[in-house]
Amino acid sequence: MIVVMKVDSRQKEIDDILKRLAERGLTGHLSKGVERTVIGVVGQTYPELRDMLELLPGVEDVIPITKPYKLSSREFQSQDTVIRVGDLTIGGGELVVMAGPCAVESEEQLLETARAVKAAGANILRGGAFKPSTSPYAFRGLGEEGLKILAQAREETGMPIITEVVTPEDVGLVLRYADILQVGARNMQNFVLLDEVGKAGKPVMLKRGMSATIQEWLLSAEYILSQGNRQLMLCERGIRTFETYTRNTMDVSAIPIIEKVSHLPIIADPSHGTGKWYLVAPLALAAVAAGADGVMIEVHPSPDYALKDGAQSLTFDNFQRLMAQLVSVVASMGRKMAGGTNG
Amino acid sequence: MIVVMKVDSRQKEIDDILKRLAERGLTGHLSKGVERTVIGVVGQTYPELRDMLELLPGVEDVIPITKPYKLSSREFQSQDTVIRVGDLTIGGGELVVMAGPCAVESEEQLLETARAVKAAGANILRGGAFKPSTSPYAFRGLGEEGLKILAQAREETGMPIITEVVTPEDVGLVLRYADILQVGARNMQNFVLLDEVGKAGKPVMLKRGMSATIQEWLLSAEYILSQGNRQLMLCERGIRTFETYTRNTMDVSAIPIIEKVSHLPIIADPSHGTGKWYLVAPLALAAVAAGADGVMIEVHPSPDYALKDGAQSLTFDNFQRLMAQLVSVVASMGRKMAGGTNG
Amino acid sequence: MIVVMKVDSRQKEIDDILKRLAERGLTGHLSKGVERTVIGVVGQTYPELRDMLELLPGVEDVIPITKPYKLSSREFQSQDTVIRVGDLTIGGGELVVMAGPCAVESEEQLLETARAVKAAGANILRGGAFKPSTSPYAFRGLGEEGLKILAQAREETGMPIITEVVTPEDVGLVLRYADILQVGARNMQNFVLLDEVGKAGKPVMLKRGMSATIQEWLLSAEYILSQGNRQLMLCERGIRTFETYTRNTMDVSAIPIIEKVSHLPIIADPSHGTGKWYLVAPLALAAVAAGADGVMIEVHPSPDYALKDGAQSLTFDNFQRLMAQLVSVVASMGRKMAGGTNG
Amino acid sequence: MIVVMKVDSRQKEIDDILKRLAERGLTGHLSKGVERTVIGVVGQTYPELRDMLELLPGVEDVIPITKPYKLSSREFQSQDTVIRVGDLTIGGGELVVMAGPCAVESEEQLLETARAVKAAGANILRGGAFKPSTSPYAFRGLGEEGLKILAQAREETGMPIITEVVTPEDVGLVLRYADILQVGARNMQNFVLLDEVGKAGKPVMLKRGMSATIQEWLLSAEYILSQGNRQLMLCERGIRTFETYTRNTMDVSAIPIIEKVSHLPIIADPSHGTGKWYLVAPLALAAVAAGADGVMIEVHPSPDYALKDGAQSLTFDNFQRLMAQLVSVVASMGRKMAGGTNG
Repeated sequence: MIVVMKVDSRQKEIDDILKRLAERGLTGHLSKGVERTVIGVVGQTYPELRDMLELLPGVEDVIPITKPYKLSSREFQSQDTVIRVGDLTIGGGELVVMAGPCAVESEEQLLETARAVKAAGANILRGGAFKPSTSPYAFRGLGEEGLKILAQAREETGMPIITEVVTPEDVGLVLRYADILQVGARNMQNFVLLDEVGKAGKPVMLKRGMSATIQEWLLSAEYILSQGNRQLMLCERGIRTFETYTRNTMDVSAIPIIEKVSHLPIIADPSHGTGKWYLVAPLALAAVAAGADGVMIEVHPSPDYALKDGAQSLTFDNFQRLMAQLVSVVASMGRKMAGGTNG
Repeated sequence: MIVVMKVDSRQKEIDDILKRLAERGLTGHLSKGVERTVIGVVGQTYPELRDMLELLPGVEDVIPITKPYKLSSREFQSQDTVIRVGDLTIGGGELVVMAGPCAVESEEQLLETARAVKAAGANILRGGAFKPSTSPYAFRGLGEEGLKILAQAREETGMPIITEVVTPEDVGLVLRYADILQVGARNMQNFVLLDEVGKAGKPVMLKRGMSATIQEWLLSAEYILSQGNRQLMLCERGIRTFETYTRNTMDVSAIPIIEKVSHLPIIADPSHGTGKWYLVAPLALAAVAAGADGVMIEVHPSPDYALKDGAQSLTFDNFQRLMAQLVSVVASMGRKMAGGTNG
Repeated sequence: MIVVMKVDSRQKEIDDILKRLAERGLTGHLSKGVERTVIGVVGQTYPELRDMLELLPGVEDVIPITKPYKLSSREFQSQDTVIRVGDLTIGGGELVVMAGPCAVESEEQLLETARAVKAAGANILRGGAFKPSTSPYAFRGLGEEGLKILAQAREETGMPIITEVVTPEDVGLVLRYADILQVGARNMQNFVLLDEVGKAGKPVMLKRGMSATIQEWLLSAEYILSQGNRQLMLCERGIRTFETYTRNTMDVSAIPIIEKVSHLPIIADPSHGTGKWYLVAPLALAAVAAGADGVMIEVHPSPDYALKDGAQSLTFDNFQRLMAQLVSVVASMGRKMAGGTNG
Repeated sequence: MIVVMKVDSRQKEIDDILKRLAERGLTGHLSKGVERTVIGVVGQTYPELRDMLELLPGVEDVIPITKPYKLSSREFQSQDTVIRVGDLTIGGGELVVMAGPCAVESEEQLLETARAVKAAGANILRGGAFKPSTSPYAFRGLGEEGLKILAQAREETGMPIITEVVTPEDVGLVLRYADILQVGARNMQNFVLLDEVGKAGKPVMLKRGMSATIQEWLLSAEYILSQGNRQLMLCERGIRTFETYTRNTMDVSAIPIIEKVSHLPIIADPSHGTGKWYLVAPLALAAVAAGADGVMIEVHPSPDYALKDGAQSLTFDNFQRLMAQLVSVVASMGRKMAGGTNG
């Protein structure tokens, strides 16, 4: 942490800061410039220290220089985290494809979709049993009934399943059915939920909140990691901006940034990232070209009859076409599809 | 809902839409313009209908014309909601002042603050026992111990208390101590929590999420209202923008907007809204001039020793000065301070 | 400027940076912390230095600690800039009211408005002769004809006039008629135009760009000041955010921030700041309560017949009502209306 | 345009609206729903009509249904615009690569770069002679001297040149040297400049403003097209969001959106789009995977000695590596590199 003094700060003020730091077992390292004095704080700092220092007389600004997250950083762990789910590995170089409907609506809808995405080469089946919805009057999912249908689809197709958990007390229930727990964007800072999935002992996918900075996202990851769960992957799903043409603005740059600053695998969700089905394929391909470890795609037998997010869902045909394009782009990058999919 | 057809749409496509609407018990009302045809949907529509219609051939755009929230709207209830907390009324015209530390840190800290803000004219005591924190390594509150200290301060000062609840299973616990439950910005779309406080039978204050539109905020209010709890007030606490000088950008215009579109009381929190103590007084005054029903102000005996959010907390002296200014501005608006405070 | 080294940086890398700094006549001041080394750069730095340093091996981050603007800062000039326009002073404590139509549409429209706002207590007449318009098919102003009508209104009412200049080569023309030149939000970074108005020798009002940070705004002010024109005031007129209810989100906190970091007067424009006439009065009052030196209000004889921005214009009656409220709030703040207006 | 009446609107109010519309030669088409009446406006509408209608009694909302831009839309012209620059075509399917330094700094710097990017396969040379700069104290370009150096590089390498024009009166000068005129992000709404380049008779590249919606961008394009210049391409270069890790957030989804709603070619600028050299390659590849017609890349002989934007510039080696990756990804998409580059 660096304390920048005001141009007209006085020696007494500087001395007071040094004293305050000493009270906390920290040392202040003075650097007198042409215009102003700067104090480097040496020792184990913490975020609240900044608030305190900013309030002291003579202080112009306080600048943190250490990243507030640790376990999720490349500096802490230089090699990539690789997560194993059955025979699959996520984060090990191959492209993983997760696909399925936004919400589980019925046995028929899910099984039909599961077979179709499996046939097209998807590796993991997605489907929501508990659905957060902006409006209390909208469909909120089938609950445990939906989880059972998901398990049935796994039974039949062999695909592991990823599904969302929306509240801490459901973690145990969802764990009984899911292979990967998903924490949704609206819950990225539901800290009690993060604690719980941090104790779950199964892989977790943490979506970025729609107004979360990359640093805040990694701090939420830190909650999960610090509870002992290291099987964690991140998912970029679009951020909120002023643009209204798309539902969200998918931050494709987050993919190489995460790769640079963290060892955690990064998945891209162009369905929520754009909100429009005809943008899903171009953004899925873009995400892969930018280095994503996987993509998550919403697929529905009849998007125009979907109970949720039909506008951003692909038909089986469109999904199949996208898979062929993914195979081609992945090969051009010198990478492979997970599970031996080759079109 | 209005369906806007493409310029080159065909009669068959229009007929197909009318058929789809009829399947759902709805009627389509055709309006043929110079350039294109527009179909007005008559009947009880719902959000998912939009997704479905957007996917049909020949459709350019689908525009909802009914607001998705009901119980929170002025159209549903034209007179203002007035909430009673002991002798106080919130939303009835008088300005209510809530004040206290960000977090309850100790009995001494809270009681000292409670006495000071009471003496200065505050009406309600605030203080967090459960604190959401961006980092897992930061202070997260004293929990039930903090609630007990709050109750003790109420005992001594007579001020009702408002405190945050962060997870559904704590609602019962917090209810045993609090007079008003606060749902924080990060939990504005924690729908399970909204359901729970909707059943609580005590007043609730719902903060705006930092990237929530006004419509989304009112939809979250709808969760609480639709569970039967009508003692609901809203709180503007700043939104996330590109500006980095302040922690958030306080959206003062949200105050008169809420007053126009909803009957719910609206409180302003300039402490979180700005993140800097020297901006708290000007923004509190601005909020009142814009018509806020109340303000919530963070006050701490020694902000530079606070465990949380010291940078945005007022000292006792600064709070007292602000109260005097509030009294003056409130009088100039032809309004009164709640509880007979008159400086 | 502070250079933060990577945790695993090597001595050779540190030495290289010190050498680079020395080449530019700068000194590096080393501070070795527990985790990493930090280098304070002593000497006259400049923004491009940051880009260079960031690229050097071993560097984690480079943090500027000096503000990039000078002439506009409080540190450079501690007393407030006070601008004189005829008998009026702007920035000297009294509240200045600028009012008039968005665009000059006709002699009759402008004169009628000028008389009405004068009668209600406005100090300065506004009206656009050159109008930037998002669409090429919309009204773009009467040009010089509009300037002549403004001059005529000044002749009749005695009110000085403020009007916008949109391109460098029109500065001379507009100067012949205007008392204050306005640089609009879309031109805040039209640097050639800033240079020109910097040489104009008449007061200038610089609006904040809709996505400009406060620092960028002050850097644009620096363009004008560094050309020798110190009669400069700033105008907050709303920033672009994700919220779609309002046309812009008026950043009321910018008012006390400018007051703190700069000596330049700050005006608030709630008409553009909100885009809706029924929000203009509450936000004008809020701006004044937050400390604005003046407000700029759009007024039109028949907003529903306005050629531009009718939706955000006040009728004469509404403007008169607002003036009465301003008088009251200004008095409650211990301030006065400019020009002796007292309702 | 659709006029949505309030739930409690009266017949007299509806009649008044119909009368107003008739005064303007428009017809109102009534549609009475369960809750409220909606009026479809039939005839040639215009943006100001919305402002007017919103102000009338009984009106809840006014919704435009026609896009405000025409010449730039796919509906107006269904086949792609293809621009010819010498032997090159832009927008015809092949990927065009523009490369060069941010600013022309010297003959040596530019020629060296020109040779290197030519050798690596670039098609068009970029370089700024007039540089907009946030700070008045920073480098603003060599002016005409820079243009001469660009012309010399074209002479030697045969590459056409693209360079920015920042003010209307320089258009003639820049036209004497440039093959393509660039309008920068900060000038996207400099309407006088747009008019001028609309008369230029040479190809123009219009960058998206950093807070411009896609609709506003297309309206700025409309300025140029409506002056008769149809040789127009667009360039996505990042938008302003709350994220501070990158300089801008590159909106990759804008690429397929422009392709859908407009016939104009779309170029991606990942250098400005990210602001960090190590993100340029992944985002360039992403843009191509999303369907961009071209990319614009900043390249500098020694980025750490660049006078401007060194942090986002590639070295010659890095650029060469990127070209090889582009060749591979372009081939995987079934497309070709312009100019026969094949690695």
